[in-house]
Amino acid sequence: MSPAANGANGGAHFDVPKTCKAGVVVNEGQDFRVEVQDVPVPEPGPNDVLLKLNATGLCMSDVHFMMNDWAVPKMSECGVQCAGHEGAGVVVKVGANVTNWKVGDRGGVKPLWDTCGSCEHCWDGRDNYCQGGVYTGLAAQGTYQQYITSPAKYTSRIPSGVSDYIAGPIMCSASTMHRALLDSSTKPGQYIVFPGGGGGVGIQGVQLAKAMGFRPVVTDTGAAKRKLALEMGAESFIDFKETENVAEKVKEACGGVGAHTVIVTGYQAYKDAISFIGDRIGGTVVAVALPPAGLITLGADPNHFAFKNLRIIGSLVGTMKDTAACLEYAQRGLLHQICEVRGLSAMPESVQQLRRGEIAGRIVIDFNQK
Amino acid sequence: MSPAANGANGGAHFDVPKTCKAGVVVNEGQDFRVEVQDVPVPEPGPNDVLLKLNATGLCMSDVHFMMNDWAVPKMSECGVQCAGHEGAGVVVKVGANVTNWKVGDRGGVKPLWDTCGSCEHCWDGRDNYCQGGVYTGLAAQGTYQQYITSPAKYTSRIPSGVSDYIAGPIMCSASTMHRALLDSSTKPGQYIVFPGGGGGVGIQGVQLAKAMGFRPVVTDTGAAKRKLALEMGAESFIDFKETENVAEKVKEACGGVGAHTVIVTGYQAYKDAISFIGDRIGGTVVAVALPPAGLITLGADPNHFAFKNLRIIGSLVGTMKDTAACLEYAQRGLLHQICEVRGLSAMPESVQQLRRGEIAGRIVIDFNQK
Amino acid sequence: MSPAANGANGGAHFDVPKTCKAGVVVNEGQDFRVEVQDVPVPEPGPNDVLLKLNATGLCMSDVHFMMNDWAVPKMSECGVQCAGHEGAGVVVKVGANVTNWKVGDRGGVKPLWDTCGSCEHCWDGRDNYCQGGVYTGLAAQGTYQQYITSPAKYTSRIPSGVSDYIAGPIMCSASTMHRALLDSSTKPGQYIVFPGGGGGVGIQGVQLAKAMGFRPVVTDTGAAKRKLALEMGAESFIDFKETENVAEKVKEACGGVGAHTVIVTGYQAYKDAISFIGDRIGGTVVAVALPPAGLITLGADPNHFAFKNLRIIGSLVGTMKDTAACLEYAQRGLLHQICEVRGLSAMPESVQQLRRGEIAGRIVIDFNQK
Amino acid sequence: MSPAANGANGGAHFDVPKTCKAGVVVNEGQDFRVEVQDVPVPEPGPNDVLLKLNATGLCMSDVHFMMNDWAVPKMSECGVQCAGHEGAGVVVKVGANVTNWKVGDRGGVKPLWDTCGSCEHCWDGRDNYCQGGVYTGLAAQGTYQQYITSPAKYTSRIPSGVSDYIAGPIMCSASTMHRALLDSSTKPGQYIVFPGGGGGVGIQGVQLAKAMGFRPVVTDTGAAKRKLALEMGAESFIDFKETENVAEKVKEACGGVGAHTVIVTGYQAYKDAISFIGDRIGGTVVAVALPPAGLITLGADPNHFAFKNLRIIGSLVGTMKDTAACLEYAQRGLLHQICEVRGLSAMPESVQQLRRGEIAGRIVIDFNQK
Repeated sequence: MSPAANGANGGAHFDVPKTCKAGVVVNEGQDFRVEVQDVPVPEPGPNDVLLKLNATGLCMSDVHFMMNDWAVPKMSECGVQCAGHEGAGVVVKVGANVTNWKVGDRGGVKPLWDTCGSCEHCWDGRDNYCQGGVYTGLAAQGTYQQYITSPAKYTSRIPSGVSDYIAGPIMCSASTMHRALLDSSTKPGQYIVFPGGGGGVGIQGVQLAKAMGFRPVVTDTGAAKRKLALEMGAESFIDFKETENVAEKVKEACGGVGAHTVIVTGYQAYKDAISFIGDRIGGTVVAVALPPAGLITLGADPNHFAFKNLRIIGSLVGTMKDTAACLEYAQRGLLHQICEVRGLSAMPESVQQLRRGEIAGRIVIDFNQK
Repeated sequence: MSPAANGANGGAHFDVPKTCKAGVVVNEGQDFRVEVQDVPVPEPGPNDVLLKLNATGLCMSDVHFMMNDWAVPKMSECGVQCAGHEGAGVVVKVGANVTNWKVGDRGGVKPLWDTCGSCEHCWDGRDNYCQGGVYTGLAAQGTYQQYITSPAKYTSRIPSGVSDYIAGPIMCSASTMHRALLDSSTKPGQYIVFPGGGGGVGIQGVQLAKAMGFRPVVTDTGAAKRKLALEMGAESFIDFKETENVAEKVKEACGGVGAHTVIVTGYQAYKDAISFIGDRIGGTVVAVALPPAGLITLGADPNHFAFKNLRIIGSLVGTMKDTAACLEYAQRGLLHQICEVRGLSAMPESVQQLRRGEIAGRIVIDFNQK
Repeated sequence: MSPAANGANGGAHFDVPKTCKAGVVVNEGQDFRVEVQDVPVPEPGPNDVLLKLNATGLCMSDVHFMMNDWAVPKMSECGVQCAGHEGAGVVVKVGANVTNWKVGDRGGVKPLWDTCGSCEHCWDGRDNYCQGGVYTGLAAQGTYQQYITSPAKYTSRIPSGVSDYIAGPIMCSASTMHRALLDSSTKPGQYIVFPGGGGGVGIQGVQLAKAMGFRPVVTDTGAAKRKLALEMGAESFIDFKETENVAEKVKEACGGVGAHTVIVTGYQAYKDAISFIGDRIGGTVVAVALPPAGLITLGADPNHFAFKNLRIIGSLVGTMKDTAACLEYAQRGLLHQICEVRGLSAMPESVQQLRRGEIAGRIVIDFNQK
Repeated sequence: MSPAANGANGGAHFDVPKTCKAGVVVNEGQDFRVEVQDVPVPEPGPNDVLLKLNATGLCMSDVHFMMNDWAVPKMSECGVQCAGHEGAGVVVKVGANVTNWKVGDRGGVKPLWDTCGSCEHCWDGRDNYCQGGVYTGLAAQGTYQQYITSPAKYTSRIPSGVSDYIAGPIMCSASTMHRALLDSSTKPGQYIVFPGGGGGVGIQGVQLAKAMGFRPVVTDTGAAKRKLALEMGAESFIDFKETENVAEKVKEACGGVGAHTVIVTGYQAYKDAISFIGDRIGGTVVAVALPPAGLITLGADPNHFAFKNLRIIGSLVGTMKDTAACLEYAQRGLLHQICEVRGLSAMPESVQQLRRGEIAGRIVIDFNQK
């Protein structure tokens, strides 16, 4: 690991260069590619900090933003040329009005680059639903660029003992999982099922669920995922390729009744999610995965809702609190680094692999490695 | 009103006859009818009370039980010949072990005649979901019979000042509404929409919502329902026959954003229910109405769930607490009698009218009127 | 009422004068007085708005700040010469970075002039507990001055239909009450007792409690307060001067059992507050009033806590959400103006009357009246 | 361990003897003693089961009941000669109306022998506060007698894999802790301090807190308690005899801020409990320990309550749900047996040792050992 990624910044002074490396999107759209280029280092506004990132995660949303196949504006229309929203690094400069950050502090950037701070959701600790939020790597320069600015009030503090390699993915996937777990109202001692929980996002949910006193059950496939899921805290692993009736096995694994909660992190799992509730009264399905629009209806017969006290809810990314909570779990050693670290030169091809579905788990790019 | 229905029982002694009047189901099934017959007065078990009912409501579920077109056992298989589950009257005899009821106390019978008292739901104040519950008028003799037994621990106490005409329907419809309102997690000051809220069940929801500090909005049709809904506390009434875009009007009525909560009490409303949430983040749809099995899927695109923080939940009848709370609202004058009272001889034809959909609002049968 | 106080601002342009009127503290300390002086109109910072206040309430905390008899810094040490934290007016200028406010918008200033926006409390909708909060009229210029700056993100929007005379006191007392009511976890239908609830702060609590579906009971004294309390929604009024055993009467008024919640808004009430819980299991006492430090211990025998499931909690001012909620209740006509409006020239003497305890209810100063 | 205590009952038939062994109180009052006598085996009522106990815990409350130094009726006035309320054994006979228990099922008896099942608390899952509850070993024959009756609906089911030695103390101390933890509203990741948490009751709290995702901190004294506390899940152990400023050390152990929650299980800890909250905003002190009446006032300056958002609450024994939850934690291996098992003949002297404060930890009497 490059020393910087552990927060070993040596002194508190940084020479900020004029230009830096960045994974720039070229030919935005279906045939996009990422090129490592030299770009100008931005100047922080009066309420911003300038971060030198050591690490950025790569996330499938980045691909969608660069392909522009979601119903959102183009990056280029927003003046943005770098995707990415899982960045971890160090503050190298602070804006004129900034008092709560100093050079040398470690900070992270999340899917939401900023929120309005003035709406009912921001006031209610529900900043993930701020309708004036600015998305990183779409409407604000993303974490594929080593030096980026970040609003002082919306930058996440990275505690000592948490490397930038783990802090990066926490900014997005772990925080999203933490929010979904809280929104689900699951209680200690209850069964929580993660379909596809052996993957990069689900496994963060499994670890958090374990840390919160829930009883995680994973359905996925393959020996490697079985091993990982069980090591990370799953009470049971059900290999859906080796199991005739998965719902029946889930029920057995959940006290013979069924899941209290099902967290859907891959959209292929929506079709079976409700069945995992089994005979449980008051079970909850949480929709986290975002399928192509119009592809799927998640629902049930109203009789099923009423007689089973079924709940279906949706959850979206994490709040400032969720990220802070996840970083604390990581600091306590309860949230592990489950990612592959590659040097910057590997970024272009890694993004293509991600697009082609060839990546298992999470890729983190180390800006300090070639 | 017959004096008895106000709880004016005079002394505390009652001569219990050998036989009593009852609306007995004849020819159970598609061609059923109800006949007023003389039947034996039952003897209470050691843990039961014997109630002399003054009033029973008529509910569409009764028709389904007598037609046996729901996926439940036949009444006759359970040894039951009287439907009905909204009974209010007076205790005329108590079982040997009963210490908390005495002759002359006023009591009511609900959709659940008894619960197990020993399961996780009973222990958790969720007795409406007791899987060992016994349904009145299906698996236990129903309230179409004037004298029925009721478990001492599961009989609801009717407070002074609440007539049996209003206590009857509270046992089912108001209690169900109260439970749905609590399950919805609606907070004071929030908008709650009742599609079809001018009807017998919805109007109880409107009154309770008002009493709980919510802001009820009703969609229904006709001048009479408009008048009733507004009198009973609705802030707005939207006549769906006179309105081109009902969802748009609901949105306007709900602060220009949309409903915080939608309570579906008639299954025809499921198709529009989610649209009433409008642009509200964190809205909740509560499924209370029970459509024919397999007819309807209530759901949405997972993107909709996630981006809107949408919740869909189901709710079923009320608990002991809900009935007690409703009776207290009635005692305070916040839950009014919205029913037509008829004598016992009108029961058979009234049930047929109910079946044919010819009844607007609630019919209550007064056992003491011919 | 001066037209401005209703938000009738005519056009959206305002000529901002160089100086304005202000009630300046002179001789800070035990012998302080307030003098109306001409002071420079401040310039808003880039993230601020400049407000022209039409109204400010007078609050006992102002007196404490000017006397400096609380354990807080001196106003003068903070460079502040005007107390006051209940201001309502109109935006007349916006800072360079401000996008969500425009000239002509109506805005209010609260006890907290600003919060850090970056701590666990701010992120959790608990901004009233931000430890980096800046108190208005102590560490930031207060609302005794007609033109003051206010951070754009922490200024409260005043809706149409709510006069500045009512918006002013809402900024402090009603918001504080709303927070205390939410913190108390009182539920619709429960009894809530306001000792001294006929006074300026308590009566706001009574109205809010009523609007939220609770059952307010007031103990206070005098025919005027009785009349006011009952008009504003109290179910019962107990005159403590005419009542031998107040706790017994409270118990009777609370269903024969006792209060679910007691909200203490005057510190003299602490000594009896727990007794008002009576035989209620799970009752809650909320400490809002701030007595001189060290004067009072609020507590009970641990046996009492355990056997009665007693809760005592503290609550402090309101959050952004609380103020918004109160303004909405006011707009709906559920929170009334219970104050006396005086012209600016009356400010100095009114403050002295307040200090001497000669003010019943709330005084609001209209800056546009002499 | 005697085989019976593991639920190894062999066949499902039991020959019920006419008499059985019992630890009978003799000379009730200050000079009481316990004598092992032969007493008649009771006959279960129609709604009861007859239990053959394998194990009973000894609890300090037993001593108080036998000394009659609490403000409760005498055991003898209730016709009770055996104390004890932590019993675990097997059903050997069922009453005529009992359908949900059969001979051979394992069952336990708790501090509440029965509840009314018909009050607002029973309906609300708060049966620990049923005001009609019957206390075991005071108003109903206690678990110092090997064969006792127990209401079928209020007997706790003991799952396989949990020995009677651990099930016994769960009936009282672990259940009480579980209730206190839930009542405290502590959330996963928060710090929870157990003063005296190395003792018999506290250590159950530590284990449960750990299982629920909280971060337990123990203050107690001695190497043995340190070892035990850390093994059972405490993150830190602070020896109050070796520490000058315990509150300061607690603060350090709680993230440098202070406890989110303090659970007081020994009344000597009340004097310092609030100090352990430190600078934490929104901390909670839970009063569980019952000191001699009138000895202690637990409270604070209202300023402290308001400025710190402090909460003090009381909690009393456990509910049916709490016991079931604890038994499940035990089955999962998360709640261990921390007790010394002695034979029946040791009961009289063990009770005296308990009275004299000579017992460290929990004593469990095995009825099947001499």
